[in-house]
Amino acid sequence: MTITDMPSTTTWNAAYWNSRLSSRAQIMTASAIREILKITQEPDVISFAGGLPAPELFPLDAMKQAFTTVMEKYGPAALQYSTTEGHLPLREWIGRQSNIPPQNVQIMTGSQQGLDLLGKVLISEGDVVLVESPTYLGALQSFQPYLPHYVEMPTDEQGIDVDALETLLKTTPAKLLYAVPNFQNPTGRTLSLERRKRLVELTDRYGVMVIEDDPYGKLRFTGSELPSLYQIALERAGGDPDQVNVIYSSSFSKTLAPGLRDAWVQAAMPIIQKLIQAKQGADLHTPTLNQMMIAELLDDTLPRQIEIVKKAYGERAQQMLAQIGQHFPEGAQHTVPQGGMFLWVTLPEGVNTTALLSKAVERKVAYVPGSPFYALGGGENTLRLSYSNATPEQIERGMRALGETFTEALG
Amino acid sequence: MTITDMPSTTTWNAAYWNSRLSSRAQIMTASAIREILKITQEPDVISFAGGLPAPELFPLDAMKQAFTTVMEKYGPAALQYSTTEGHLPLREWIGRQSNIPPQNVQIMTGSQQGLDLLGKVLISEGDVVLVESPTYLGALQSFQPYLPHYVEMPTDEQGIDVDALETLLKTTPAKLLYAVPNFQNPTGRTLSLERRKRLVELTDRYGVMVIEDDPYGKLRFTGSELPSLYQIALERAGGDPDQVNVIYSSSFSKTLAPGLRDAWVQAAMPIIQKLIQAKQGADLHTPTLNQMMIAELLDDTLPRQIEIVKKAYGERAQQMLAQIGQHFPEGAQHTVPQGGMFLWVTLPEGVNTTALLSKAVERKVAYVPGSPFYALGGGENTLRLSYSNATPEQIERGMRALGETFTEALG
Repeated sequence: MTITDMPSTTTWNAAYWNSRLSSRAQIMTASAIREILKITQEPDVISFAGGLPAPELFPLDAMKQAFTTVMEKYGPAALQYSTTEGHLPLREWIGRQSNIPPQNVQIMTGSQQGLDLLGKVLISEGDVVLVESPTYLGALQSFQPYLPHYVEMPTDEQGIDVDALETLLKTTPAKLLYAVPNFQNPTGRTLSLERRKRLVELTDRYGVMVIEDDPYGKLRFTGSELPSLYQIALERAGGDPDQVNVIYSSSFSKTLAPGLRDAWVQAAMPIIQKLIQAKQGADLHTPTLNQMMIAELLDDTLPRQIEIVKKAYGERAQQMLAQIGQHFPEGAQHTVPQGGMFLWVTLPEGVNTTALLSKAVERKVAYVPGSPFYALGGGENTLRLSYSNATPEQIERGMRALGETFTEALG
Repeated sequence: MTITDMPSTTTWNAAYWNSRLSSRAQIMTASAIREILKITQEPDVISFAGGLPAPELFPLDAMKQAFTTVMEKYGPAALQYSTTEGHLPLREWIGRQSNIPPQNVQIMTGSQQGLDLLGKVLISEGDVVLVESPTYLGALQSFQPYLPHYVEMPTDEQGIDVDALETLLKTTPAKLLYAVPNFQNPTGRTLSLERRKRLVELTDRYGVMVIEDDPYGKLRFTGSELPSLYQIALERAGGDPDQVNVIYSSSFSKTLAPGLRDAWVQAAMPIIQKLIQAKQGADLHTPTLNQMMIAELLDDTLPRQIEIVKKAYGERAQQMLAQIGQHFPEGAQHTVPQGGMFLWVTLPEGVNTTALLSKAVERKVAYVPGSPFYALGGGENTLRLSYSNATPEQIERGMRALGETFTEALG
């Protein structure tokens, strides 16, 4: 009897496969956005759904030059294994921006990895994690496998309501607070300076670690720059990065290009040390070549790109806002972002933006329904619009179609 | 009172930071190998410790050409976000090698990520995971955060002892079996054909999923190629990849270059679907540029590289084995690898290779003590030697020094 004659004793049905999965995998679900994006990817649909940077602005020539420089400078070392911490010149440059040493900087394979590994090293099952209402869906997805207990912080036009936060902290034993203070994903809102200071003071007093996710901070097109929570906390700590309760995460995805997957986390050494251990098990290190290429682009290309990108996104945001004024029905409220890639629309209670999406797609325009951005559900009448990856012509045509869809829905 | 005047209420000591960590992070430890590598990285130490490919063999010119081709062919899309599943032409090529559709192939950011995400979606706390004794340390590190209960499978010169495995399976409710059948890391051993068939039959009968880790399979320099566990299981399943209990993991790190971090997992769709969800939260996707570059190298460069690399490693292995014969004391046993990068030395009981390492480093040569490769401890008298990243002159000089070290210790 050969091996192929032996009968398999397994019944290959869904119950079998489900029994093979970990308990955490059994509660994982596909990203709602991802599923929605699939139906909106037909080429004739104008999509304000994805959070994609504008590819026509990518610095192609500088990338080519960076690749050539890296191959000349490093040769085979650019293709070899490298350290888990990351390429030292890149970490040194990042450290200098905050006046901290490179050892407090850990390179990540995209800021999504930073969130995953922070979840892994910080969240035990049932730990209370405070999130904005609404919050970045990708963070919920990264943290979920570690089984947190989400508690939502109320927000308004200036971001997190810190008075409500204080009330929460008095009664809720929170482990972690996750926030996107600049041009938040999904709302485009920015946390005010006074609230930043209060938030740092409160989380320090209550011993709550803060993950500050700041992929868009450099892309401010109106108003003046605000210090990060990290900077405020570092100043409070007399400049000692190992006495800072805020973990800062940022990325080159929105300023240079996302396809290289290069981001970083800065934190106190006890956190960094655990992140290094977790990253060893997660992917050993971020691709060597990519880190070296990014490092070649920091002094000239990056500042130039930031100017180019924020000018373009500022114009596109302006145009989208103008179209809202022209085509959206009364009763549709929206945020006015000072930077970044997103704005947020709230329709009257009772309108369901998930149900409405198919009507919009019939009119060849797509958005992301807001509900998946709420950790605890709700927000059925909200939606996110991205202006970063649309031409002026697409914005005009798409927003008119969206206005028609909403006007019809509001009756 | 300004914000910096407010006193911090936190005492920034080790207990504070430890209290911030998840329970899984509290039991994470730095890789023993990583700590050892640090002390062996002085430039005048000949290191047989790291598992590094030979960088002088990397296909630099082909990489440069691949980059140019990718930029011409895809332009900005090479730098944009891409799908979680991975670059379709790459997945199609991989699928064709096993006669399975691309949907059963998931691209990973290095095979370490494959192990992490498989741990995440398969291992619940306390699940029994069967591992070889000894096994690949990196797998232990990837799985550990998911809190498995490791059970060791006895091994001999032909790899896993399948009779002992059958006895184990009768009494142990195992969830998962992890194995490196070809030129195992750390021992260099290869699982025989008969045992492969028995292993597939047994794990099918007892409903145990198998993770087959095969980064070195293409690097066979003596003997004839054996079918993978995956191929055997696929044949048993009549070619239906969705009725296969074996999950296959491999990589381009050892054949093309590790610094790009490009690897893959092939598995049944219910597993792939969960891996996609887990990967969304882990790093969204593997860097676009890197996948596209690898895809350009598959038809010409990859087969040529495989020939170049296995010829070089075969010569180095031969040379290291000859030096063992010449310089090692009697009582030092060793494996004879048919491929890959490693061989394994067993000194007489009572010799402690961890303690001996400092003596070796005094003689300017380094290895990895074997103990960390045992999930449950032991193996204090064993060590791993890598021949892939050493010149003939280094092998001669280093092995003589190692022989002296061991002769002194035994004698």
